[in-house]
Amino acid sequence: MIDLRSDTVTRPTVAMRRAMSEAEVGDDVYGEDPTINRLEVRAAEVFGREAAIFVPTGTMGNQIAIRMHTQHGQEVICEARSHVLDWEMAMMASFAGCQARTVAAERGILTWGLLKAAIAPTIYYRAKTGLICLENSHNMAGGTVTPLGVLEEIWAGAKKAGLPVHLDGARVFNAAAALGVGVAELTKGFDTVMFCLSKGLGAPVGSMLVGSKDAIAEARSVRKALGGGMRQAGVLAAAGLIALEEMPKRLHEDHANARVLAEAVAGVEGVEIDLEAVQTNIVIFHLKDGGDAAAYVAALKERGVAASAIGPHAVRFVTHYDVSREDCVTAAGVAVEVLAGVGAAV
Amino acid sequence: MIDLRSDTVTRPTVAMRRAMSEAEVGDDVYGEDPTINRLEVRAAEVFGREAAIFVPTGTMGNQIAIRMHTQHGQEVICEARSHVLDWEMAMMASFAGCQARTVAAERGILTWGLLKAAIAPTIYYRAKTGLICLENSHNMAGGTVTPLGVLEEIWAGAKKAGLPVHLDGARVFNAAAALGVGVAELTKGFDTVMFCLSKGLGAPVGSMLVGSKDAIAEARSVRKALGGGMRQAGVLAAAGLIALEEMPKRLHEDHANARVLAEAVAGVEGVEIDLEAVQTNIVIFHLKDGGDAAAYVAALKERGVAASAIGPHAVRFVTHYDVSREDCVTAAGVAVEVLAGVGAAV
Amino acid sequence: MIDLRSDTVTRPTVAMRRAMSEAEVGDDVYGEDPTINRLEVRAAEVFGREAAIFVPTGTMGNQIAIRMHTQHGQEVICEARSHVLDWEMAMMASFAGCQARTVAAERGILTWGLLKAAIAPTIYYRAKTGLICLENSHNMAGGTVTPLGVLEEIWAGAKKAGLPVHLDGARVFNAAAALGVGVAELTKGFDTVMFCLSKGLGAPVGSMLVGSKDAIAEARSVRKALGGGMRQAGVLAAAGLIALEEMPKRLHEDHANARVLAEAVAGVEGVEIDLEAVQTNIVIFHLKDGGDAAAYVAALKERGVAASAIGPHAVRFVTHYDVSREDCVTAAGVAVEVLAGVGAAV
Amino acid sequence: MIDLRSDTVTRPTVAMRRAMSEAEVGDDVYGEDPTINRLEVRAAEVFGREAAIFVPTGTMGNQIAIRMHTQHGQEVICEARSHVLDWEMAMMASFAGCQARTVAAERGILTWGLLKAAIAPTIYYRAKTGLICLENSHNMAGGTVTPLGVLEEIWAGAKKAGLPVHLDGARVFNAAAALGVGVAELTKGFDTVMFCLSKGLGAPVGSMLVGSKDAIAEARSVRKALGGGMRQAGVLAAAGLIALEEMPKRLHEDHANARVLAEAVAGVEGVEIDLEAVQTNIVIFHLKDGGDAAAYVAALKERGVAASAIGPHAVRFVTHYDVSREDCVTAAGVAVEVLAGVGAAV
Repeated sequence: MIDLRSDTVTRPTVAMRRAMSEAEVGDDVYGEDPTINRLEVRAAEVFGREAAIFVPTGTMGNQIAIRMHTQHGQEVICEARSHVLDWEMAMMASFAGCQARTVAAERGILTWGLLKAAIAPTIYYRAKTGLICLENSHNMAGGTVTPLGVLEEIWAGAKKAGLPVHLDGARVFNAAAALGVGVAELTKGFDTVMFCLSKGLGAPVGSMLVGSKDAIAEARSVRKALGGGMRQAGVLAAAGLIALEEMPKRLHEDHANARVLAEAVAGVEGVEIDLEAVQTNIVIFHLKDGGDAAAYVAALKERGVAASAIGPHAVRFVTHYDVSREDCVTAAGVAVEVLAGVGAAV
Repeated sequence: MIDLRSDTVTRPTVAMRRAMSEAEVGDDVYGEDPTINRLEVRAAEVFGREAAIFVPTGTMGNQIAIRMHTQHGQEVICEARSHVLDWEMAMMASFAGCQARTVAAERGILTWGLLKAAIAPTIYYRAKTGLICLENSHNMAGGTVTPLGVLEEIWAGAKKAGLPVHLDGARVFNAAAALGVGVAELTKGFDTVMFCLSKGLGAPVGSMLVGSKDAIAEARSVRKALGGGMRQAGVLAAAGLIALEEMPKRLHEDHANARVLAEAVAGVEGVEIDLEAVQTNIVIFHLKDGGDAAAYVAALKERGVAASAIGPHAVRFVTHYDVSREDCVTAAGVAVEVLAGVGAAV
Repeated sequence: MIDLRSDTVTRPTVAMRRAMSEAEVGDDVYGEDPTINRLEVRAAEVFGREAAIFVPTGTMGNQIAIRMHTQHGQEVICEARSHVLDWEMAMMASFAGCQARTVAAERGILTWGLLKAAIAPTIYYRAKTGLICLENSHNMAGGTVTPLGVLEEIWAGAKKAGLPVHLDGARVFNAAAALGVGVAELTKGFDTVMFCLSKGLGAPVGSMLVGSKDAIAEARSVRKALGGGMRQAGVLAAAGLIALEEMPKRLHEDHANARVLAEAVAGVEGVEIDLEAVQTNIVIFHLKDGGDAAAYVAALKERGVAASAIGPHAVRFVTHYDVSREDCVTAAGVAVEVLAGVGAAV
Repeated sequence: MIDLRSDTVTRPTVAMRRAMSEAEVGDDVYGEDPTINRLEVRAAEVFGREAAIFVPTGTMGNQIAIRMHTQHGQEVICEARSHVLDWEMAMMASFAGCQARTVAAERGILTWGLLKAAIAPTIYYRAKTGLICLENSHNMAGGTVTPLGVLEEIWAGAKKAGLPVHLDGARVFNAAAALGVGVAELTKGFDTVMFCLSKGLGAPVGSMLVGSKDAIAEARSVRKALGGGMRQAGVLAAAGLIALEEMPKRLHEDHANARVLAEAVAGVEGVEIDLEAVQTNIVIFHLKDGGDAAAYVAALKERGVAASAIGPHAVRFVTHYDVSREDCVTAAGVAVEVLAGVGAAV
């Protein structure tokens, strides 16, 4: 099976497995796991921050940040298709007690103009805005990338408005690779940044939250509350260190592979795709004339290609290090062939 | 001052004041206030329901309903400009623990088609939809009315989907008057309905939540939790009974007065107004070319007319029984004159 | 019926009813209700504070305070039988997100020593203490009073520990009367104080929260969230003003009446009562040898005296201005007679 | 260092490390991690249940259970020193919205009589009891064990009362070993059971929640919400499987070692210890005459023995597979020597 459902399916490399089995560990609740400590120091360095904390998932990292930056009864501004809204189980409401103030943006790219208009007016009987939350690259918009210039305007505006800004950077290394900018540069104005060691970087488990020393100290308490205070977590950190050091270099390959897939399906009648939105390792396209995405995905699966139906007519491919260029070329061929079939069937 | 800011500003009538001073009362937490009991029985009768409960505000009534129908971590589908979203302090999140799934609808009129598309897919790692919440008439869409036919389709669809539907009927008597339908008929498919005795009906304080016996029994617990378990509340219910019995009859006057205002401003260059949206006692219009609503409202106030700036360029008038036809004609004149001035100024 | 179930059952006086019918009112959400404004100014004056806010119930006042002073995930220290714990629907948890850290104290009188030991240690994986909450007089301990000296030690200790202290002063005027101290003096070290206009002071509906200007401004937002932002609430404030000005003077009568009841039952074999705990208008006693409080209360009711069974063997009488000295003498006689009968029966 | 601070400090065995490096893995969010699946099946078998789910920590397992069994605004009955109350960051309140109803029990052993008295009376304005939560063995009571007979009465009573019962079985294998009963037998009446693979069983990371198929399906959603939906978690499950299969057999050694420590300190003047409470791998004792636990623990550390000060005068030792009998004999000697010194010092 060529698995293009998500970059979350990657399996640890041989080097990661070895590192895990040899990891020096300790009780991380007591701050005594040397491998965790090493990973946290490195993550902070890579992002040019004071501190970092390891969390079992990106969801936990984002929700810790949202909780830390807000108070119950406030609003969090986010894009209308963002992960924190659609794929984090309404925790923004049920744990942070915050209401999402959603803004739909073309290709998921929020601008300061859009955000500013969504800030709550200062009326005592109106919920206050507590946080702005961005996502870069933006998964459900098709892996689109917010450029540095747009971000700089947002950081400046938010600072003036006295609002913290958190980045859901699950795939921020993809964004950085696409822009040819370092992650430290690309995230320097955010109060906190969550990024995933799993997904594109290939670690089996884990994400990081980076920020100021105080913020990460508080994050440590919230992580404990959420049940994320693991003990000898160094076994995971060992793989995470390799992910962080080695894997960002190769992300351009995934992007090129995504391009192959995108261009292949773009050539098919009956497919609607925004090729300009294919900027990283995600390809989203729509089946025209009510084509059934679930049926299409099922047909692909029978032919050895796994993809995701992310809407009634929407299909998503995600490339990653467990699918080679050859795999993607094969998958592109299958995708096109089945599309023809589906077109006929529908 | 001709106060058109909201229908919440009405003062109790002489009859209401007398009723309040003579009300038989008891301790309502023990269920012993005869006037409260009488009002609750009457409200249930008027809406053709088993039971009703008095609450100090419409916000409390809505939030009790949202809490009752949902569980923390679910989603509530509501219109993008609805009162439960914008004017109830994010309580849907901070008290009910639910995330708003917003749908923008033309003139605020949600249809089953729009709602159905917003129901969460059944995936274990996705927040479930717990409730649909409508608003009729729809305040921020300009007092627009959802017709019975549209509601019937929603009720049928929601029932099939296994979803409860709550009505924020703060101004449901206005909607009923505009449609020439009784409130029982207009709300018969909702699981619960909140309506206000204040606002158009003119009581000084109070709203009602109506529904099944079981629902209202549970509402009584939630009301206590929110601090709404008042003691000798019969003093308020006495006014509420008059509001419920006498005031609905005269709402068509407010609607006619709103029409006067709407048509007057519609005649002015520089005003953008959707006259077809003026269906009840609310008139919303926009100042073209970046006209400053706050400045306009300030200018009106100087000339004895109070209105609300509900956006940078948006102005709202609300008619009610404390402003007569004459008042509205005067206000319309002032509104037009000042518009000319503002136009000139801008 | 001589109703000794609670001081919440009092009906408004003739003067209160008249005041209500003549009250000048406005929209209090806009801050325009002159009678509410007058009451809030007076309450602040009486307590020697910057500001006050009217709330529909004591529960709402307490829960606003708890929410304001804390953050979700903290602990609130309170006495083990306190009203905020047992009779406010777990809102400390479900609205403020705080865990109660309970301390059982003799006669409900918390001391700084007891409180200090209950403060959470400073460990990052331990919930922080956010608030201390006292109750004076203490309802479920039998209307017992915490003396000024004990409070002064608590205020000093809490200040040093950086912890806010809120008073549930539902019956603080009873406490003040019992101690012969003014309420301003008796509450001067609390960050916020809630007191009830209903209960001993006899208003039909309403309580107040007093504190600093900033605290009360924030309380106004939380009140709106809880659905306590009533419109022409001046009709209630009018009665509240009379309650505040006139009723404290007569509380010593209720206390004397409670004494009559307490001493009468104390003379009966089979009754366990702590006469020293009968300090205000509440009398709690226990039926020895497994005597059935519910049966006893039912028997009293048949003979025209209403009381509360507050435990399997515990009975409570509460005196108030709707029961005269004569009523209490009669009730005491009935109580003693029926006790004899119950003793026989059991 | 002989580390007796907690059994959480254990490091993975060689076999565990090898298993981790060779684990077959997949994306567990999609249910495709074969090692996780194998562990979940085995855990369910061992406990005689339909299903089980892997969670990163015991705290997450407990909090998932509390959330699942309750609704916001209910009460959870638990022992006054229980882990869910004192060491889980007030999540019972801030995530489940529930108020703790605490019951202090001798040696932490709750009985049905104690629990029954703590169930909330059925009054609409009183928070309902939603769950009973036990802890076996009971950490802060000194690793004490609730015998099967006591549990059977509780299960029967709770069933009759319609209340679910959850077990915090972080150390349930220790309890089972102490009683000579299987864990399936010892937990058969609980609705859900959480147990730890870390702690006594020695896995680096992870706990399990077991219960009915439906309960565990719902737990999967709550785990995702809390950020516990890890991807290739099979690397952890591989160690967990060894912990589950191999490590319970040797717990009696830890218990014997605890005995050695307990009896050693019991012989020292100035130590207060309840030897009958030393039933598993935990030893708690108090320093008489205000002896300073922190100072004592610091002195031990200088001499190569790590322990915990769990109160101003309370010290805890926990034995586990990383400390041998010899280590414990040495530690006991040091403990006694330093106690003499401390006694002298204080």
